[in-house]
Amino acid sequence: MSPAPLLHAIASPADVKSLPAGQLKELCREIRTTLLDYGHTHGGHIGSNLGMVEATVALHRVFDSPHDRIIFDVSHQSYVHKMLTGRALAYLEPQHFGDVTGFTNPDESAHDQFVLGHTGTSISLACGIAKTRNAEIAATGTSGIGNVVAVIGDGSLSSGVAFEGLNNAAEQGGNLIIIFNDNEMSIAGDFGGMYGPLARLRASGGTAQPNLFNAFGLDYRYVEAGNDVDALTAAFEEVRDIDHPVVVHIHTLKGAGYDGEPNSPATPPTTTSTIQTTTTTTTTAHTTQTIAGDASEGIPATANVQHSEPWHSDHCNLSDHEPHEGQCEASHWQNPDASLGKPEDPRKYYGKMAMAALEPRFASEPGLVVISPATPGSNGITHEFRERAGAHYVDTGITESHAVAFAAGIARAGGTPVVATTASFFQRAYDQFFQEMSLNRSRVTVLDFLGGLSGSDNTHSGAYDLAMFANIPQVTMLVPTSGRDFLNDLAWATLPADAKDAPTGSVVIRVPGEGVLAAERDRSLLPITGDRTTEVSELTLGGMLGWRIKQSGSQAALIGLGNTYPLAERAAAALQSEHGITATVIDPKQCTSLDTAVLESLRANHELIITLEDGQLEGGWGEKVTAYYANHWQQAETDETAGNNTAGRSRNPRVLNFGATKEFTDRVPLAELNERYGLTVNSIVEAIIRCF
Amino acid sequence: MSPAPLLHAIASPADVKSLPAGQLKELCREIRTTLLDYGHTHGGHIGSNLGMVEATVALHRVFDSPHDRIIFDVSHQSYVHKMLTGRALAYLEPQHFGDVTGFTNPDESAHDQFVLGHTGTSISLACGIAKTRNAEIAATGTSGIGNVVAVIGDGSLSSGVAFEGLNNAAEQGGNLIIIFNDNEMSIAGDFGGMYGPLARLRASGGTAQPNLFNAFGLDYRYVEAGNDVDALTAAFEEVRDIDHPVVVHIHTLKGAGYDGEPNSPATPPTTTSTIQTTTTTTTTAHTTQTIAGDASEGIPATANVQHSEPWHSDHCNLSDHEPHEGQCEASHWQNPDASLGKPEDPRKYYGKMAMAALEPRFASEPGLVVISPATPGSNGITHEFRERAGAHYVDTGITESHAVAFAAGIARAGGTPVVATTASFFQRAYDQFFQEMSLNRSRVTVLDFLGGLSGSDNTHSGAYDLAMFANIPQVTMLVPTSGRDFLNDLAWATLPADAKDAPTGSVVIRVPGEGVLAAERDRSLLPITGDRTTEVSELTLGGMLGWRIKQSGSQAALIGLGNTYPLAERAAAALQSEHGITATVIDPKQCTSLDTAVLESLRANHELIITLEDGQLEGGWGEKVTAYYANHWQQAETDETAGNNTAGRSRNPRVLNFGATKEFTDRVPLAELNERYGLTVNSIVEAIIRCF
Repeated sequence: MSPAPLLHAIASPADVKSLPAGQLKELCREIRTTLLDYGHTHGGHIGSNLGMVEATVALHRVFDSPHDRIIFDVSHQSYVHKMLTGRALAYLEPQHFGDVTGFTNPDESAHDQFVLGHTGTSISLACGIAKTRNAEIAATGTSGIGNVVAVIGDGSLSSGVAFEGLNNAAEQGGNLIIIFNDNEMSIAGDFGGMYGPLARLRASGGTAQPNLFNAFGLDYRYVEAGNDVDALTAAFEEVRDIDHPVVVHIHTLKGAGYDGEPNSPATPPTTTSTIQTTTTTTTTAHTTQTIAGDASEGIPATANVQHSEPWHSDHCNLSDHEPHEGQCEASHWQNPDASLGKPEDPRKYYGKMAMAALEPRFASEPGLVVISPATPGSNGITHEFRERAGAHYVDTGITESHAVAFAAGIARAGGTPVVATTASFFQRAYDQFFQEMSLNRSRVTVLDFLGGLSGSDNTHSGAYDLAMFANIPQVTMLVPTSGRDFLNDLAWATLPADAKDAPTGSVVIRVPGEGVLAAERDRSLLPITGDRTTEVSELTLGGMLGWRIKQSGSQAALIGLGNTYPLAERAAAALQSEHGITATVIDPKQCTSLDTAVLESLRANHELIITLEDGQLEGGWGEKVTAYYANHWQQAETDETAGNNTAGRSRNPRVLNFGATKEFTDRVPLAELNERYGLTVNSIVEAIIRCF
Repeated sequence: MSPAPLLHAIASPADVKSLPAGQLKELCREIRTTLLDYGHTHGGHIGSNLGMVEATVALHRVFDSPHDRIIFDVSHQSYVHKMLTGRALAYLEPQHFGDVTGFTNPDESAHDQFVLGHTGTSISLACGIAKTRNAEIAATGTSGIGNVVAVIGDGSLSSGVAFEGLNNAAEQGGNLIIIFNDNEMSIAGDFGGMYGPLARLRASGGTAQPNLFNAFGLDYRYVEAGNDVDALTAAFEEVRDIDHPVVVHIHTLKGAGYDGEPNSPATPPTTTSTIQTTTTTTTTAHTTQTIAGDASEGIPATANVQHSEPWHSDHCNLSDHEPHEGQCEASHWQNPDASLGKPEDPRKYYGKMAMAALEPRFASEPGLVVISPATPGSNGITHEFRERAGAHYVDTGITESHAVAFAAGIARAGGTPVVATTASFFQRAYDQFFQEMSLNRSRVTVLDFLGGLSGSDNTHSGAYDLAMFANIPQVTMLVPTSGRDFLNDLAWATLPADAKDAPTGSVVIRVPGEGVLAAERDRSLLPITGDRTTEVSELTLGGMLGWRIKQSGSQAALIGLGNTYPLAERAAAALQSEHGITATVIDPKQCTSLDTAVLESLRANHELIITLEDGQLEGGWGEKVTAYYANHWQQAETDETAGNNTAGRSRNPRVLNFGATKEFTDRVPLAELNERYGLTVNSIVEAIIRCF
C-alpha cells in the first residue's frame, strides 16, 4: 500500500473543502494509486472509478453533501465518493476491504442516497428528491435539501428510463444538476445512433447541434477536461445553486491512470480543454500535461481519438479455457490478481459453450442473431466471438426492454433471436416478456444467466428469476442440469419455426450455475448418475418437457430442479447408505409445466415428495407441486387399489419444499445460503426421516 | 350508417392503390364518417384513429403490405388500417363490430404484425424485422420483406423503450421508416421537456435544431400537412425503398373531424403545409381548406396553435357521480353513447374516492404527490382534481419505470408519493419495484388499478398482478374489500415516516374491482357481513396485516382474497342453507404474508380450507396457504390434543385453491371467466361437499 497521507486525513467532505487548492491534484494521485492497489487485491469496477477521480473530488469540493444530494447512477463509480465520505480505510487497508459494499448504501453513510445496481435511474431518483425540496420551499420557504446532483455515464444513458428521466427533468424545473460522465464507453463499447452526434458535440467543445440534452429542453455545459480537478471545480462552482435543471457534460477517460503495467510509462494524446456552455461561454485555461508513470496530474481526455488500448484495457481473468482472449470489457470489471488462472465461473463456462454451439450455424442461418443488452463478457460472449459473429451479434446497449422487443421483431420476420443477459437485469424486460414475447408467441430464446442462488450482492441476485419467468403464460422455461442438456435445450429452442417438434413460442433457458458446474467437474457429486448413460423414463410427457426419472425407488421422491439436482442425488445416496431407503430421484428439466404422469405415478408407493430449488419458494416452482397434489386429492375410501391404510395414505403424498425465503441477501456466500435454506444433504435427509 | 361505397369496395390494400388519386379524399371522408358512427355505437380509441385517417390511406397507397411491414405502436391507431386490409365490415356493420379486436392481431390478418397494447415498442419491433430482412439480403441477395415501417405517436415517444429503439435504429442501418405521428397529445396532455423543442421543430417546418431525431443519428423529414392525403402520399413516396433509417414527422390533429356535435360547423385555423427534409428540400403545394361540416377535405394541422376544444374533446361518459366533469382525456377513449348515465366502473369510482381522501391533505403536506404515468382519467384522477392538485399531481408521461424511480426519490427526501396506474402497465416498472422501491425500502404507495380478473382484452389483463407484486421481497400488498378498507389502507400507506405504526417500506394497494363494488352497491351480496359492524378477530397479527375472521365456524374455512371476498360470503351462506354447515369466513386483507395465528387456529376443527382469488393461481396467493400446511405438517400420532382419528386428521386441513389458469384471455366477460375457473357459489359448494 502506498502511504496516501492526504487521503488518510480525510474523514468527511469538509476535509476535501479545507485542503489547499494546490493539494487537490496530489489527493487525486493518492486516490488513483489507492484504487489501483485495491483493484489488484480486491477487484472491482476500477475503470469507471479511475475515470471519476477528479470529478468526485470536485463534487465534494464544491457541493455540501449530504445537505446537497449526490445520486450516483448504478453506483459502480462511487468508490471515490466512499473514500471522501469517511470510508477511505475500506480502500486503504486490506483488512477493511470487506467493510463497504460495491454500491452506495444509505446504511453505510448519510452521504449515500440509494442502494443501486442497475443503470439509468439516477436522473429519475434525483427528480424525486428535487421535487420534494421544491415543494418544501414552496410551502415553507426553506428545505433541508440543497443542490440535487445526478451522476450518469454515457453507457447508462442508453437505458430507456434515463431518457424518461431526462424528459421529466426540464419539465419539472428548479435546481437539478445532471453530471453526464462521458468516457466514450459502456460496459463494452457504446452502441447506438446517439453516440455519433455525442462525439461531434465533444469535438465541437459542446457547441454543435444536434444536442441531445437541448432536445430534451435542458440547459447544457461542456467540460472537455473531465480529468482536471481544477477545471471540474470551476465548472461545478458555476452551476452550484442554479435555479433550473442543467446538464454538465464532462469528458473523462475510463481507467485513467491504469496502463496494465504499473511501472511502464504511458503517453496519452494531448489536448487543450475548455469549458463551453450553450448559455454563457466560459473558457478556462488548461495546461496540457503529459502523463508518464504519474497518472494523477490532470489527465486530459481527447475527443475523436481512439484511446490507446493500455489506457483502458482491463486486467482480465485469463482463464485456461481461452488463453488468447486479449480484449477485456473495457475496464468494466477488474478481477483481483489472485483470480488469475482460476477455473471459469459458470456464466463464462456455459456462455462460451452456447456461443460455440451457435457459431457454426451462422453461415447457413442468416437470421440467427445473438443479442446481448450490454455485459457480454460476463456471460462468456467474448470479444473474439463477437468479432467473428459480425452481424449475427448485436450489443443493443443497456436496453433489456428494447432487446426483447427487438428479438420479437426478428422472430416475427422468421429469424432466430437469442437474447442473453443476467437474470436480475432481465427484470427490465418483464413487460416485453409478457407482451411482445409471450402474448405474441414470438419464437425468442432467452439465456438467463446467474439465475438462482449465488453469493451476489443484493442488486444482482438471481433468486427471483423463476418467479419472474415461469409465471408468464405461454413461456417455456428449461432448467438444464448439465452442459449436454443445456446444448440440447438451446438446439431445440432455436430450431427453425417449421422444424418438426419446434417450440411454438418463447423458450427461456436458465444457464446452469455453480451446483451443476461443480458436479460436471467432479462426477462424484452425481452418485446416482455417475458416469452411466442417462435413462429417461417412459412415463414422461415425452420430448423436451417430460420429467426425467433418474432412479426409481419408493417411500420418498426427490425432485431437484436445475442447480439443486446434484443435491437431490447426494441426498438420495445418503438416504440409501444411512437409512436403507432407495428414493426416487427426478430431474424435472423445466419449471413451467408439471409432468402429471410422473406425479400420478408417484402416488402408488411414495409417501413423501421433496422439491428442491435454488430460488425463492414464493412464486417459485416447488409450491406448484404441492398445490397439484392438494387440488388432485384422492379419497382413500374410494380408491379401489388401496389395500390398506398405508397404501391409502400414500395415494396423497405429502410434499416438502426446499428453497429460498422471500428476502434480499447481500454477498452471503452460496454455501451459507444453502445452509440457511436447508439445501444440504443433512437437512434434507433429516426432514425425510422425521416424516417416517 | 352512411353508405361509404368506396370503403365498401376495398377488400385489400390493392384496392387503395387502384383508386383514382382524386377519390382518396372521398375515401378519407367515408372512413372518417364510419369511424364516428362506429364510435357512437361501439366506443373505442376514436380520436387517435381520426387523426391517422389520411396517413393510413397514404401508407397503404404507397407501401405494399404485407410484403412491406407496417408496425403500429400500441395499435390504438390501427382501425383505419383494419378497414383497408379486408376488415371494413367490422366497422361498417354493427353486427360485425365484434369481429375484430381493438388492436392489430396476426390471427386476424397477414397485414397485422403483432398484438400490442402497451406503448413505445414499435421501433424496436421494426428494428428486429428489418434486421432479419437485412440478413437475408446479405446472405441471399433477396428477402420476402420489403420496406419496414414503424408508426409511433408523440405521446408514446415518452416511453423509455421508444428511445432505446431510436438509439438502435440508426446504428443498425438499412431501410427503416419511422412515421412519427405528432398530434401534440398523449393520452392526456403531453408531458416532458422534449415537447418544447418539438413544438419549435414544427414551427420551423422541421428545420430547427435541436432535433431529437438527428440527435439519435437519424435522417429526418417533416410533413406539416399530416391530414392531407396527397401531401402524405408524396412524402411516403419519397422515402419508399430508402436505404437507411429515416424519421417522417407528420403533424396530425387528434380527433380530426369530430366536433362533438355532428352537424355543427367547425372552422379550424388555416395554414400552408410544406414537406421539409434535413437532407433535401421538397416543397409540396398544399391548398388550404376550410372544414365546415365536412371533415374529410384534407384537414390542416397547425403548429403552435392551441386546438379549439371541440376538435379534440372527447365524448365523455358523464357519470352521475361527477356531472360537471367537462374535460375528457383528449379523445383518447370514446365511450359509446349507450354508456351515458351508467354507473361508474370501479376504477373511476375508487380512484375518485382515493383522490378525494388525499386532496384535503395537500395544504399541510407539501411532499404528498400523486403520480400518474399517463392514463389518469381512466382511474378517476379527473381533470378537475389535477387542476386543483397543482404541484401535488404529476403526469410523468407514459413512463412507468421513471414514475416508480421518481417516487422512490420523493420518498427518500421525506415526501409521500402515490403512484397510480393500471396493473398491466406497471409491468414496465418491475425492475424499479425490485430495486429502487423494495430493496431501498422506499416508502412508496402504489395504487394498482384493474388488478385481478376482468373482461379486458389480452394486453391489459390484471390477472397477473399478484404474481408480479406479491413475490417481491419487502413489499406489502393490501387487497381491500370495501371502500372503507381502501381508504384505511391508503391512509396507513401514506402515513408520515415518523408516525406511529407507519409502514417500513413500500405498500401496494390493489384498488377494488367489480366484485367488491357490486357488493358495496348491493349489500345482499354480503350475506355474512350484511350491515353489521365488522368484527376483527383477536387472533390476527394485529394492525394492518392481520387477517379478519368475519364468521367463525367449523369443518370448512373460506378465505376470499379481495374481489372474491363477497363470493366467499355467498358460498358460506349457501353451505349453511343447503347443507347446514357453518363455515369460517375470512377476509385476509393482504396477500404478502400469511397470518399464521389464524392458519394455526383453523387446524382444530377444520378439515378443509378454501382459498379464492381472482387472479392467476401459479405464482399467486392461495398456493402459499397450501404450501404452509404442507410444510408445517403435524403428525397425528404425536399430537396430544388429538382425541380420535377425525381430530387427528383435521390437524392438517386440506387446501383447495380457486383462481385463474395460467393463460391469456381476450375480452372474455368476467362472469364467463368466473365460470371457467370455478369462482361461483355452486362450484365452490360442490367442491366442499365432495370432500366430506
